[in-house]
Amino acid sequence: MPDTLRDLVEKVLAGDRRAMGRAISTVEDKDPLAVPLLRELFTRAGRALVVGITGSPGAGKSTLVEKLAKEYRRAGARVGILAVDPTSPFSGGAILGDRVRMQSLANDAGVYIRSMATRGQLGGLAPTTHDAVTILDAAGCEVVLIETVGVGQDEVEVARLADATVLLLVPGMGDDIQTFKAGVMEIADLYVINKADRPGAERIEQEVTAMLSLTSRPDGWRPPVLRTVATTGQGMGELYQALDQFRAFSESGDAKEYRRKEHWRSRLLEILRQTLFERAVAEPLRDGSFDRQLDDLLAHRRDPYSVVEEIIAGFMAHTGGRQS
Amino acid sequence: MPDTLRDLVEKVLAGDRRAMGRAISTVEDKDPLAVPLLRELFTRAGRALVVGITGSPGAGKSTLVEKLAKEYRRAGARVGILAVDPTSPFSGGAILGDRVRMQSLANDAGVYIRSMATRGQLGGLAPTTHDAVTILDAAGCEVVLIETVGVGQDEVEVARLADATVLLLVPGMGDDIQTFKAGVMEIADLYVINKADRPGAERIEQEVTAMLSLTSRPDGWRPPVLRTVATTGQGMGELYQALDQFRAFSESGDAKEYRRKEHWRSRLLEILRQTLFERAVAEPLRDGSFDRQLDDLLAHRRDPYSVVEEIIAGFMAHTGGRQS
Repeated sequence: MPDTLRDLVEKVLAGDRRAMGRAISTVEDKDPLAVPLLRELFTRAGRALVVGITGSPGAGKSTLVEKLAKEYRRAGARVGILAVDPTSPFSGGAILGDRVRMQSLANDAGVYIRSMATRGQLGGLAPTTHDAVTILDAAGCEVVLIETVGVGQDEVEVARLADATVLLLVPGMGDDIQTFKAGVMEIADLYVINKADRPGAERIEQEVTAMLSLTSRPDGWRPPVLRTVATTGQGMGELYQALDQFRAFSESGDAKEYRRKEHWRSRLLEILRQTLFERAVAEPLRDGSFDRQLDDLLAHRRDPYSVVEEIIAGFMAHTGGRQS
Repeated sequence: MPDTLRDLVEKVLAGDRRAMGRAISTVEDKDPLAVPLLRELFTRAGRALVVGITGSPGAGKSTLVEKLAKEYRRAGARVGILAVDPTSPFSGGAILGDRVRMQSLANDAGVYIRSMATRGQLGGLAPTTHDAVTILDAAGCEVVLIETVGVGQDEVEVARLADATVLLLVPGMGDDIQTFKAGVMEIADLYVINKADRPGAERIEQEVTAMLSLTSRPDGWRPPVLRTVATTGQGMGELYQALDQFRAFSESGDAKEYRRKEHWRSRLLEILRQTLFERAVAEPLRDGSFDRQLDDLLAHRRDPYSVVEEIIAGFMAHTGGRQS
């Protein structure tokens, strides 16, 4: 193992904050160091509880994440926070007031906060976030909280990688905003009506309860609907306990094992798909042959399938030559 | 070329209806004949105008498609219709009354109608539909009308492969249904208020016009908003003309060329990605080694990246051996 890599691995495993940040950056930047690093760290990870907190902008996710982090800190756990929400104060998109509120976490050595880039991620946001979880896990974080907007395919995938997903809803946000959450609605393990001191909390709680009464989960878990006022801390103890109950429930049966297996099956296949693809197109894109093939296709001089076979044959020959 | 293939190619090129149906079935079934067939047909295709008709269930898409097909028939064009909407009478999901209405097309040898399976498609609905367009195009259809529900990623992709996309809206369907169309809203080239004799037509037309006034397309096209009553034929001539204007517009500039190039770039890369992937996983899935690797991963005995490298190495060795 090169010295740079060994040094970084050791520091991450020791929980060195700068090294953790550097490690996540290698993943985000697709640095050549990323894969060997993740290989070393992966076999040292696998213990962290991963909790996804998702909800519309303005639902109060970052405040709730902050307060939930404190609950876990009180219980003695090291906490990692990944903010994949561009509007989050954790990810630097907030007004000064929010930043001041975050100070309570910023000065706690037992909490590591990192924002993830949400735009233009090569290979997708979910894989990058997943690798960041591996890094925080290996670095000794017993709990990783992931904050996401929960809208769009990327965010649904991020929610899927969590052991437990919390969906935040707020009174008076309008039905159209809630509609967009249909994809996440179905995968949430806990529902939280935040800002529950506002008018309309009763109504939205009834709506969620009614929706839940229409569906039953294959694992038999009945998602609770909780009320919180994250700014004052109201209901945070109950949320902490509900998460603990869900953890106990999912570890008691086959559900968690099944969920992890299905998650890793698709993740492994996706890494394979993407790795093969990137290697196969690198040369044709670089030497301009792909553009010539595309022009032939547009003129209907050639068909797409023979073009693909040519690219694959070139890839096989190229790689074979490099390996021998 | 094997006799079966040569026979099928010749009959499709001659516009034989049974051969066209069989050719589309080979694509849907992923029959080994599909790729060699498409190779032969692709270089004979490329002339058809592809029009996507999208809208919610109940918007009157199939009636509008029927009437639009008649407009193209009047102009002397051969017409292919692909129904990828499970609620469409074309695809067999309708009540008897609808079927009776379709008779007018069923007895016209210049119209070919085919429903596409919408569930459980290996490799996605959009690629299959696209291959079906190639077949109809090679078989001499000058116009191909694709009917889709327009909800969900698959349908948005289908809409993208059309040269022109028509979005049907109807008065009084409720805002929540329209909300789901956000993805398609942005890519429609023509907007049609169907069932325009109903109350609320004015309001929805104003909403669409207001939305369009807020955005400008990179190609400079200003999508028209038309009113139709497809059941009576009202407005169908205007729709035909508007489609013709859009075709003339998009062929005059670089827009169509650019659109086709971008479409084929991503389609070609997707075929490559999927082909490589399917070949690489076939053996590990068959011989059970993938499941063993997955178990090692879940136990954190091995990392995902080394597992992927092992699969790729096995694939390269296997293929190399087979080729030599």
